[in-house]
Amino acid sequence: MLFFTNDDINAVLTMRDCIDTFEQTYRDVAAGHAVNGRRSDMITTTAHPNAVYQLKMVGAVVPRYAVGAIRINSDILSFPVIQGKARKVKVPAASGNRWVGLVMLFDTATGAPLALFPDGVMQRMRVGATSGLGVRYLARPDARRAAILGSGWQAGAQAQALAATRDVERLVVYSPDVARRTAFAGELERQLMLPVQPAASAEQAVKDADIVLCATNSLQPVLSPQWLRPGMHVGSLRVGEIDTRTLTAFDRVVVHDRGNMRDDHLVVAEGIDHREKTSPLPTTLAAAPSLAELVSGRAAGRTGDGELTAFLNYHGLGYQFAAAGALLLEKARVAGRGRELPDEWFTQDVHS
Amino acid sequence: MLFFTNDDINAVLTMRDCIDTFEQTYRDVAAGHAVNGRRSDMITTTAHPNAVYQLKMVGAVVPRYAVGAIRINSDILSFPVIQGKARKVKVPAASGNRWVGLVMLFDTATGAPLALFPDGVMQRMRVGATSGLGVRYLARPDARRAAILGSGWQAGAQAQALAATRDVERLVVYSPDVARRTAFAGELERQLMLPVQPAASAEQAVKDADIVLCATNSLQPVLSPQWLRPGMHVGSLRVGEIDTRTLTAFDRVVVHDRGNMRDDHLVVAEGIDHREKTSPLPTTLAAAPSLAELVSGRAAGRTGDGELTAFLNYHGLGYQFAAAGALLLEKARVAGRGRELPDEWFTQDVHS
Repeated sequence: MLFFTNDDINAVLTMRDCIDTFEQTYRDVAAGHAVNGRRSDMITTTAHPNAVYQLKMVGAVVPRYAVGAIRINSDILSFPVIQGKARKVKVPAASGNRWVGLVMLFDTATGAPLALFPDGVMQRMRVGATSGLGVRYLARPDARRAAILGSGWQAGAQAQALAATRDVERLVVYSPDVARRTAFAGELERQLMLPVQPAASAEQAVKDADIVLCATNSLQPVLSPQWLRPGMHVGSLRVGEIDTRTLTAFDRVVVHDRGNMRDDHLVVAEGIDHREKTSPLPTTLAAAPSLAELVSGRAAGRTGDGELTAFLNYHGLGYQFAAAGALLLEKARVAGRGRELPDEWFTQDVHS
Repeated sequence: MLFFTNDDINAVLTMRDCIDTFEQTYRDVAAGHAVNGRRSDMITTTAHPNAVYQLKMVGAVVPRYAVGAIRINSDILSFPVIQGKARKVKVPAASGNRWVGLVMLFDTATGAPLALFPDGVMQRMRVGATSGLGVRYLARPDARRAAILGSGWQAGAQAQALAATRDVERLVVYSPDVARRTAFAGELERQLMLPVQPAASAEQAVKDADIVLCATNSLQPVLSPQWLRPGMHVGSLRVGEIDTRTLTAFDRVVVHDRGNMRDDHLVVAEGIDHREKTSPLPTTLAAAPSLAELVSGRAAGRTGDGELTAFLNYHGLGYQFAAAGALLLEKARVAGRGRELPDEWFTQDVHS
């Protein structure tokens, strides 16, 4: 049983490896070999002021890697209005101003625990890698100009996924705060070794882009239908970032997983006004192809240079943690990373 | 962040405290204050011979105790036929012949992890305490004679629950193996300090009983409708122990939770023949009252001495781990039990 830190994970996982591993995993998903548990977001009152408590769990088993994974998040959520837009903010309320997100991995051959680690770095990597698969199958092969809307933790991973899947020559970033977007552009420029410019508006950022990846924490639309052009590929991480009307303008929309498109993973206690509940997904997406169908060839990818495509990378799936977790175990073994924890803490001599 | 062993838990949790805590918890459930995640049992292939792999997760939050709980089981399941009956057996395949079941508790005020412990002792206690609530509300107040079918780990907890809720004067136990049932009767006699006899058949065990609690690992019926008498209360832990036809003989049937009565918590990989899938619940139970409705007074309990009642304690709920976990934290604090683990292992300085 190994314990990894976010630094361990950051040191051994690369975006390209993750994308390749996910491609194989989603093919297993399409074939029904890998299974995903039903996600639950449990939301109740909390003693923390002006907030709700959210306990989230997802899980999956990917037999190819002999790994099962459970990911747990225990969060204090607040919903401040920032620059006129409602945002969801996770409050670091645990001791030392920390957040709580954990992954545990298990061995399908013995049931034994394999690893325990915080979910932060992997969470970002798996969201990025999944969007990267969307780019690989849906963006024009010759796409060179890209835009990122958002400048947070997830936006950085989206940029890495872009760089791992297309020969990007120019990247433009936008987020409402000037200082943040400027710093973010500089950071990406150093990291990806390509020109990255901050834009003064979302419209300007999107203007000449072949690929637009939205990675904001906005609960309101960030993209206008007037900004879309034939041949463009758009990615989105959050329900509501692209509104229903805008979605109808696309020639091809692929969703992460139809089962996870419904709101039925939300379990909300009586008397809680949970704002996210008010963003139901358009019913027109009920039959949209899934990423697993796309990468397994059961659904078509882009069929022409003029197509306007979208990949809606909404809601996490446990598969991602099982697959990235298996990759982590393999890479950490080679790199000698991880700290042994006593197996006895995570196993027992009685029958449950 | 505390780590508890099964011994710690066994030392501080009592059946009576658990039943009382659960009574309060199920009232909160009825009022919608406590929430339960959607359970998932993920079942795939395994490298272990003649078996399947099952990764199970349940979770819940009970704001009254400011506790959220996740319970995880990682099991190798085999289905041998023993004495002509199909049974489900969990193989202790982890290093040192151990099983894998874990509970984690979280603080709803901060999100912080509170405790990690194996689920064995608590699992047994929570099943027993839940059946005990069934007895408290559905068995005749003057019930004195009881029978237990089964002699395993769960059967012992059922006997404790009986002793905590009614003044039992005579207990009869039956299970197919003579040596096991004799040993079990002796063990219960010492533990509960009341006369306990082994019976030669299930029919003989049930003959004069006011209360019959079934706690077998049989996937086939263990109770015949001819053995039922007016005024009797019957409990069951496993789908299939009491068949559909027998259930129609009861005047009042209460289920643990209607939401958990469906088979939709099973997520089975392609190509797996999962035997439990073949035990669907009778549709006549779709509108049966739940335990939460019973203890909150929204559904009636026993209304007369001649009523034949049943409580079907099928499928666990996360509430039980949150409530018993809160009780454990309280009792362990007083008793000075538990070992500190570094909070930093279970929290992080990045935003997931």
